[in-house]
Amino acid sequence: MESLVIYAICVILIEHVRCVPVEMSAATYLQQRAQVMNAEANLRIGGSVTLNSREQQVNRILMDAKHKEINISRTANGPEFLPSVHFFKGKPAIEKSSVFQLIKEMPKGGALHLHDCSMADITWLVKNVTYMDHCYMCTDQDNHIQFHFFQVAPSNPACPWKLITTERKNSANQEQFDDMLYRSMSMVVPDPVKTFPTIDVVWKEFLRVLDVANGLINYAPVFGKYFYESLKEFHDDNVQYLETRALLPVLYNLDGSTIDNKTRVMEIYQQNHDQFLKDYPDFTGARIIRSGLRFVPASDVLQQVKESIVMLQQFPDFFVGYDLVGQEDPGIPLIDYISALLYPSQHNINLPYFFHAGETDWEGTPTDNNLIDAILLNTSRIGHGYALTKHPQAKNMVKGRGIAVEVNPISNQVLKLLDDLRNHPASSLIAEGFPVVISADDPAVWGARGLSYDFYMAFMGMASADADLAMLKKLAISSLEHSAMSTSQKSKAIYQWQYKWDQFIDRMLGNNIPNSSFVQKNSARRYSPH
Amino acid sequence: MESLVIYAICVILIEHVRCVPVEMSAATYLQQRAQVMNAEANLRIGGSVTLNSREQQVNRILMDAKHKEINISRTANGPEFLPSVHFFKGKPAIEKSSVFQLIKEMPKGGALHLHDCSMADITWLVKNVTYMDHCYMCTDQDNHIQFHFFQVAPSNPACPWKLITTERKNSANQEQFDDMLYRSMSMVVPDPVKTFPTIDVVWKEFLRVLDVANGLINYAPVFGKYFYESLKEFHDDNVQYLETRALLPVLYNLDGSTIDNKTRVMEIYQQNHDQFLKDYPDFTGARIIRSGLRFVPASDVLQQVKESIVMLQQFPDFFVGYDLVGQEDPGIPLIDYISALLYPSQHNINLPYFFHAGETDWEGTPTDNNLIDAILLNTSRIGHGYALTKHPQAKNMVKGRGIAVEVNPISNQVLKLLDDLRNHPASSLIAEGFPVVISADDPAVWGARGLSYDFYMAFMGMASADADLAMLKKLAISSLEHSAMSTSQKSKAIYQWQYKWDQFIDRMLGNNIPNSSFVQKNSARRYSPH
Repeated sequence: MESLVIYAICVILIEHVRCVPVEMSAATYLQQRAQVMNAEANLRIGGSVTLNSREQQVNRILMDAKHKEINISRTANGPEFLPSVHFFKGKPAIEKSSVFQLIKEMPKGGALHLHDCSMADITWLVKNVTYMDHCYMCTDQDNHIQFHFFQVAPSNPACPWKLITTERKNSANQEQFDDMLYRSMSMVVPDPVKTFPTIDVVWKEFLRVLDVANGLINYAPVFGKYFYESLKEFHDDNVQYLETRALLPVLYNLDGSTIDNKTRVMEIYQQNHDQFLKDYPDFTGARIIRSGLRFVPASDVLQQVKESIVMLQQFPDFFVGYDLVGQEDPGIPLIDYISALLYPSQHNINLPYFFHAGETDWEGTPTDNNLIDAILLNTSRIGHGYALTKHPQAKNMVKGRGIAVEVNPISNQVLKLLDDLRNHPASSLIAEGFPVVISADDPAVWGARGLSYDFYMAFMGMASADADLAMLKKLAISSLEHSAMSTSQKSKAIYQWQYKWDQFIDRMLGNNIPNSSFVQKNSARRYSPH
Repeated sequence: MESLVIYAICVILIEHVRCVPVEMSAATYLQQRAQVMNAEANLRIGGSVTLNSREQQVNRILMDAKHKEINISRTANGPEFLPSVHFFKGKPAIEKSSVFQLIKEMPKGGALHLHDCSMADITWLVKNVTYMDHCYMCTDQDNHIQFHFFQVAPSNPACPWKLITTERKNSANQEQFDDMLYRSMSMVVPDPVKTFPTIDVVWKEFLRVLDVANGLINYAPVFGKYFYESLKEFHDDNVQYLETRALLPVLYNLDGSTIDNKTRVMEIYQQNHDQFLKDYPDFTGARIIRSGLRFVPASDVLQQVKESIVMLQQFPDFFVGYDLVGQEDPGIPLIDYISALLYPSQHNINLPYFFHAGETDWEGTPTDNNLIDAILLNTSRIGHGYALTKHPQAKNMVKGRGIAVEVNPISNQVLKLLDDLRNHPASSLIAEGFPVVISADDPAVWGARGLSYDFYMAFMGMASADADLAMLKKLAISSLEHSAMSTSQKSKAIYQWQYKWDQFIDRMLGNNIPNSSFVQKNSARRYSPH
């Protein structure tokens, strides 16, 4: 323990609570009220951030747009409030939102909760990968498409392989053909509520479409390019850093041979990562978190843990830890893997964990208790932590230890934990100034791109109408602070971010110089309905 | 201030948080895990309640039923989990639930959040009131029914009045006719999600059907009987006490004259209340909270506040305070009524408030800030407080001051604050052991009856799978503790409750004696999936 600094001596009293009317002037009342409201404003994420005068100017532009959007949805017969609408339906309107456009421009720091095979827009797979030589498709009896690259396609009676180049050429309309290929890898449907009535149904479809895309992604010559494209898309969305959960799958070659050496797969990631950093030197970097499936035998998890320990040495500054992924409710709880997961600490080895935990509506079940195990296993961050607010003790530990909660708003909505994002439990974590980071989980499969859509949902739907640019700024900085980077790497990343941020502020003011009377207004812009 | 008792001296340190792997045996780990889980179990509502051996026996019956119901819904293709289903759809299945049946039998204490004109089953209005002499109905151009009693019905071209006795006699099927009358006062529809797409639409329909029933209820000879019937239905549901928000409406007589003297309306309530207590001496009693509409001019609120102060004197032990009601989002916020609402404290008068506040999904809006005003205005309890978890400072004040939050699960679902009750924010208040009371709001219009349906939803959907009879017991006791009764009345009420509780335990064991091996099991029944 370091040297003790006594910070406070407190005398705590237990008294009978008794309320008596106290004569109070309206002025005194308003003062008390302002105290409470200011205390809450200071506590929320970004509450301690001070905006300089130029940032305040941008803030006015942002808050005018935000309040306008809230006000119009609150009027009778106004448009639906977008965070309360299913993303599949609300996406086109989000893209028209001035708030969203500003968020897109904003340097958002890092995306810390992503998955290997759903980071890059499906359009890239369709328009690039399916145009490559030797790319085959088949359509099974359920009318589901599969993809694979072959030198010579084998016989496959249940789903006969056809060369895509030929199929596309023979199709009546090539755009429609490509659109069909897109839809084969996407969850987006016109009526998601009807199509996906339960969480099990939506997860089944989610995993199915991921698997379709894997037919393309796991082709060895594509695999690294897909990762590179993912970095590029996040970079385009003004994200400078990312960490992805990676299954390190078996890759295949054209001749049917496979690459099942995990180290080799990591090398492909590393090579593409390094190339991307050369091509885009303003990008901070990426990190890999190995992920096992939470359905495998404990012996497999132990094996993965041991391999991960080796990889920490093999890929310093690139491989950062271990997680277990997959639908949490039917999955094996962490406690059942406890021997494997305690292996590193029992051998005095530090293998950082980044556990998905509490991605559930089922309070008090083994799934829900994954939260407690994640914390006790010293997880570096918690993936989702959706159930955290139902666990006061775990919540205290998360705050005390500074464990960031990776919140993925659109994922939680699409994968049916809730409908209206204003009811997302993380809104109270945001209000309490918890270490929260916003991420995108699997943006590709629901038609999102980068981080901006999730930032929009969190900012508009999961925070106060008065939450402003200070919150966005803090969320961006937090994402770097809670990353798996080393302290010096973080400092450098935040320095890079600050440069981007200053440029962003300049850009916003250059394009949108507000008139002088507007600029002179007080910067504290409290929500008031028009 | 009373004499100081020093409870703790704390030394609080600020240190750098540093995590290093610590060698840990599985046994040590499991011990730590149990500590966290026990701490959470102790913190939740009921966590400090000890069950005696007979209560533990009943608890085993309860928890077996609860776990069975959860397990079956968690299996693939199992039935939907009822708290996640819209009440209109789930109600028949709830009635078949063993947990619900036990809750129905259980003495539940008091119902503290109800409204005057939607407490008693609509069936009673149909089967009794519409069978009375002089009862007329009309059907307007929107096919909506209205009711009124007349000596001689006036001409009403847009909605011609017809004597119900005649209409019923002439109908093809009298049961179907009565069913039509029932539906005219009920919100229940086959597809609520489609019928009520927005919160504004559902509130419009809610207020409309309440108004239809008021045509019957506000007939002076019915008014008191309706109140008596309401007490009876709650008594039948093993509720011994209730408090209702009352608008104190203008009543009408057969000759067209009206009773608009509020004191006279209160007298009718009091007479029926006293008669009910004579007829059912095991009932503890009821109290009236006067409610203004949150849409009226401030001068009206001041007038109501002043009248309420007088009523406190006129109806001691029956009239208990003031509230403002109506759809909160479009309503005038409390702060705009501040002069009127500060009137009592500025005149050194104690008028207890029971404000509805924070019944909204809109964080940071004036509606949402009603929570802060309710607390600063020294509210005795908070109606709904749905937004409380988004207000950390207000939340601390609520806990510190012991202000009970009146949670109405089914109301919040039907009136579209959320869909799946597992996402109800009060689940975290319950987990944190907050002063929460469960109530029913307006059970009649959504086809509920008494408190049991809402208790079922809270117990199954808003609490841990491990929350047990201790939680139900604590919720029942809390409802009396947080009532507007005096301290001595509360003691008597809890004594009455204890007698009922002991009888309930006897009844449960008499009817359901578990086999001996079962009884010998440890009473700590932690959820484990089969």
